[in-house]
Amino acid sequence: MRGFTFYERISKAFHDNPVVSKLLVISSVSGGGLLAFSDANQSQTLISESAQGGGKKKKVVVLGTGWAGISFLKNLKCTSYDVHVVSPRNYFAFTPLLPSVTNGTVEARSIVEPIRNFVRKKPFKVDFKEAECYKIDPVNKKIHCRSNSAKNLGGTEEFTMDYDLLVVAMGASSNTFNTPGVLEYAHFLKEVEDAQRIRRSIIDCYERANLPDISEEEKKRIMHFVVVGGGPTGVEYAAELHDFAFEDLARLYPSVKDYLKITLLEAGDHILNMFDARITEFATEKFNRDGIDVKTGSMVVKVNEKDISTKDGKTGQTVSLPYGMVLWSTGIATRPVIKEFMKQIGQGNRRVLATDEWLRVEGCDTIYALGDCATINQRSVMEDIAAIFSKADKNNTGFLNLQDFKEVVDHICERYPQVNLYLQKNKLKKFENLLDDSQGDNKKQIDIETFKKALSEVDKQMKNLPATAQVAAQQGEYLANCFNRTEECEKNPEGPLRFRGTGRHRFHPFRYKHLGQFAPLGGEQTAAQLPGDWVSIGHSTQWLWYSVYASKLVSGRTRVLVISDWFRRFVFGRDSSKI
Amino acid sequence: MRGFTFYERISKAFHDNPVVSKLLVISSVSGGGLLAFSDANQSQTLISESAQGGGKKKKVVVLGTGWAGISFLKNLKCTSYDVHVVSPRNYFAFTPLLPSVTNGTVEARSIVEPIRNFVRKKPFKVDFKEAECYKIDPVNKKIHCRSNSAKNLGGTEEFTMDYDLLVVAMGASSNTFNTPGVLEYAHFLKEVEDAQRIRRSIIDCYERANLPDISEEEKKRIMHFVVVGGGPTGVEYAAELHDFAFEDLARLYPSVKDYLKITLLEAGDHILNMFDARITEFATEKFNRDGIDVKTGSMVVKVNEKDISTKDGKTGQTVSLPYGMVLWSTGIATRPVIKEFMKQIGQGNRRVLATDEWLRVEGCDTIYALGDCATINQRSVMEDIAAIFSKADKNNTGFLNLQDFKEVVDHICERYPQVNLYLQKNKLKKFENLLDDSQGDNKKQIDIETFKKALSEVDKQMKNLPATAQVAAQQGEYLANCFNRTEECEKNPEGPLRFRGTGRHRFHPFRYKHLGQFAPLGGEQTAAQLPGDWVSIGHSTQWLWYSVYASKLVSGRTRVLVISDWFRRFVFGRDSSKI
Repeated sequence: MRGFTFYERISKAFHDNPVVSKLLVISSVSGGGLLAFSDANQSQTLISESAQGGGKKKKVVVLGTGWAGISFLKNLKCTSYDVHVVSPRNYFAFTPLLPSVTNGTVEARSIVEPIRNFVRKKPFKVDFKEAECYKIDPVNKKIHCRSNSAKNLGGTEEFTMDYDLLVVAMGASSNTFNTPGVLEYAHFLKEVEDAQRIRRSIIDCYERANLPDISEEEKKRIMHFVVVGGGPTGVEYAAELHDFAFEDLARLYPSVKDYLKITLLEAGDHILNMFDARITEFATEKFNRDGIDVKTGSMVVKVNEKDISTKDGKTGQTVSLPYGMVLWSTGIATRPVIKEFMKQIGQGNRRVLATDEWLRVEGCDTIYALGDCATINQRSVMEDIAAIFSKADKNNTGFLNLQDFKEVVDHICERYPQVNLYLQKNKLKKFENLLDDSQGDNKKQIDIETFKKALSEVDKQMKNLPATAQVAAQQGEYLANCFNRTEECEKNPEGPLRFRGTGRHRFHPFRYKHLGQFAPLGGEQTAAQLPGDWVSIGHSTQWLWYSVYASKLVSGRTRVLVISDWFRRFVFGRDSSKI
Repeated sequence: MRGFTFYERISKAFHDNPVVSKLLVISSVSGGGLLAFSDANQSQTLISESAQGGGKKKKVVVLGTGWAGISFLKNLKCTSYDVHVVSPRNYFAFTPLLPSVTNGTVEARSIVEPIRNFVRKKPFKVDFKEAECYKIDPVNKKIHCRSNSAKNLGGTEEFTMDYDLLVVAMGASSNTFNTPGVLEYAHFLKEVEDAQRIRRSIIDCYERANLPDISEEEKKRIMHFVVVGGGPTGVEYAAELHDFAFEDLARLYPSVKDYLKITLLEAGDHILNMFDARITEFATEKFNRDGIDVKTGSMVVKVNEKDISTKDGKTGQTVSLPYGMVLWSTGIATRPVIKEFMKQIGQGNRRVLATDEWLRVEGCDTIYALGDCATINQRSVMEDIAAIFSKADKNNTGFLNLQDFKEVVDHICERYPQVNLYLQKNKLKKFENLLDDSQGDNKKQIDIETFKKALSEVDKQMKNLPATAQVAAQQGEYLANCFNRTEECEKNPEGPLRFRGTGRHRFHPFRYKHLGQFAPLGGEQTAAQLPGDWVSIGHSTQWLWYSVYASKLVSGRTRVLVISDWFRRFVFGRDSSKI
């Protein structure tokens, strides 16, 4: 009944009020640098466009079918958009299980869900096009796409699509840091095809080492697997590979198993550096026990066809490691299409596409960006300090008293989340304590200089969000909820006060809730960093991992498939066929 | 207990009699044309080689891991061989389910079993090398192989292996009849990779037809799927594709589903021509109802990038059919390596490698060939008629009486199976009736001319075995049993009389038992031609198909996987992701 009522309500609102029920659209902005004003102007523009909107549904184009895109689609419920999806992949892949696919613990097909299957269940029509967007044209509100079908089907024929609202969720590419040879010789682990290639490559190495007339040295080279990057992906892959080699391949390739060596190269001081020190330590010790050679402070300077050159961070010495297979997982880089788009909108000097806290691309009010392809450029308190002060100082006295604060404090904390982080870090209970602290005692009235001084350290708490599936999924859900509630929030804005404008923001800004992160370490052991500084390591955490991942799979179908794959693996082991 | 006793017995025999327990090997024959004499000389040579054998195990090299090779390995139980397997695929694929893989009814990985998994359970060591044999050298008893690993692992490096006994089970390639464009543009359906490619190609067509700016005509072309060849593979593929399109893809691609067309081209007068007329008729009618366009008498003369040219058998008219995907399944051809080998052994003029009824390559006594890469060259009665007569006429009277016949009749029927076929066809109960019939009354004594006349029609019953998995599997089992029982049968030959030599053949000749053949027709309907001219068509036959195939899968693992794939398909439908 709840669903029915909800749709009924939406539908009723739509019929009663056909104009404002559409998503309100801002005229496109060709240049950049409008950040400071967009806050203030937004509401105006939105309303004026809405009036022009007429009865036609706004065309929303979603680029990408990864975590961000699929989460947006999944949560989009409002039927008053004309939704189009463009992606070179006609499926969503549950990427956290990619390392499991490399070794056959889970089947590739079990972790993918066809987009068309997915959107078929929506209460509105979603049009999907399998193509790659290679150029975004914000001036003309068009995207340029290229299909990637077989030659006899037209090959890479191009077409354009227009949009009213664009949701960019194209993800990122692998970061090679321009290291020579990486693109030619190393494997990546971003796509399902990558995982399948790695799998074939490993079996290829085993089969090759098993052939006659291979020297001892060559066998050692072929059976040396190198993982570059000690982040969660690299560590999980090394662990999975170790399990595959020892639990399954050792029995099948008895004559070459003793040549196996796995090396994990990390440029930093320790692996898993975004995790708690206890986890890093446990992982390093476990890997040492397992015989995985963890080389920290080792920077890869070149990848050749048969060896990889590394430079020691301390001694500066260059060493050459012969290898059979190398996996490169050192983080992400901005895709060329996004780079090009950034130049057009005046973000050419940035490394990553920047959005505001509502996930709108800075300088482009009809374009949203989320997931790995963008970062939120959190507004600093210092930048807005005068506006905040004057907004709080309603009577223009030049001083703020406790009552003045009480009215704006929640808005400040919501608009500038670094304030709360700073309070937590310094174990302060309330915003007001910040002022106590800077003054030494409870001051009734403060002027702007005192105010600045009290907040001067706050912006140091600003942090970029990690490029994880969790962030992307939460952003997708957040944006879909904004799209769903545009009409409602247009009438009753629910966001914080606009310190640089009038009224309130329509929506609460995006806020990331960290639900914890897993680092599977092989041998049915997993480490997990949970919210509130909790750390869990061991077999039980592995079961937690199983259950969390099983519950997070996007559809009932993938859930059944993955669980039955796990079951198959327990019963039959992993398959070693080179397919 | 049975297994234990069996192994114990083998082991005891081996220790008691180390020399004769080895497989006896004939010196290599460089030329060909020794067929007529090999029968007579075989036993002699075998025994003399056995005496030279010493304590070293004979090295048996098996080429290929298809039905014939795997069936040989599965049934080989004798531990007195040194067994090596060379194949470019490190797995066995259950090929009858390949059409199901093309459409995702069954997963690719579910129908394969890694060779190493398979041989690990044998009571003796089996060495596997993943490489392709590109040359057989029967003079020096060597094979030349080429690995097919990645470039950085050595690429196509070559090596040689020697052998004492060679089992050639390399299968066949697809027959293009030298039709231009087939290799470039058509899909085949022989390997697992082929099935995966076809699957991606179909989804590619659907995705492509769904893109904007595609003309009506082009949509029709892209959505036209052509199957060339109305044999069981072509028919089953067309049926599977129809089911996939109507049961799954139609819902996911509503805007292009009406452009779909499936055409089945057959050069002959009707499809499934090796089946009973009732099945052919049923299949043709069902396909007509399903909208699959069956074009018989249509010979493909050329395949271009976007269209296929066919010539009508009757009118001679050439028609061009635009297509999106074309599958070529018109039968098999001899592989280049076998062609080259045939030239060396004097079989250069033949189309297919010939073996005798014991699966030994004619002209090469240490080489056996089985499965699709060879045919049995059944000895004709007429060729041996004089030898048969004189063997029966023990006292050299120039006449045979009833008693003389009784002693050799079983041997004749076993050595020349066409005799029994002829008797069955002419509804004669016994061999002796053959003589009655030709004379009109029961004659007590007959001379050689009468004997010749009586048997003159018999050889017309000689037929080549079909190139099916069933034949290959039975041949593999047969050959393994011969290898298992070499020692035993050396002492007590169990085969028929050697009409052109002395004594008896060591083994019974290979005899194919036809267990029936299925033709799945889609829509949960299957036709089956069972032994004894039985025909079964319908839903219940589909269940028979499920159960027979499930029971025939090579391992418990593949059985569970395939059954669970079927179950998944029933519940979730087929997956449409392009991976």
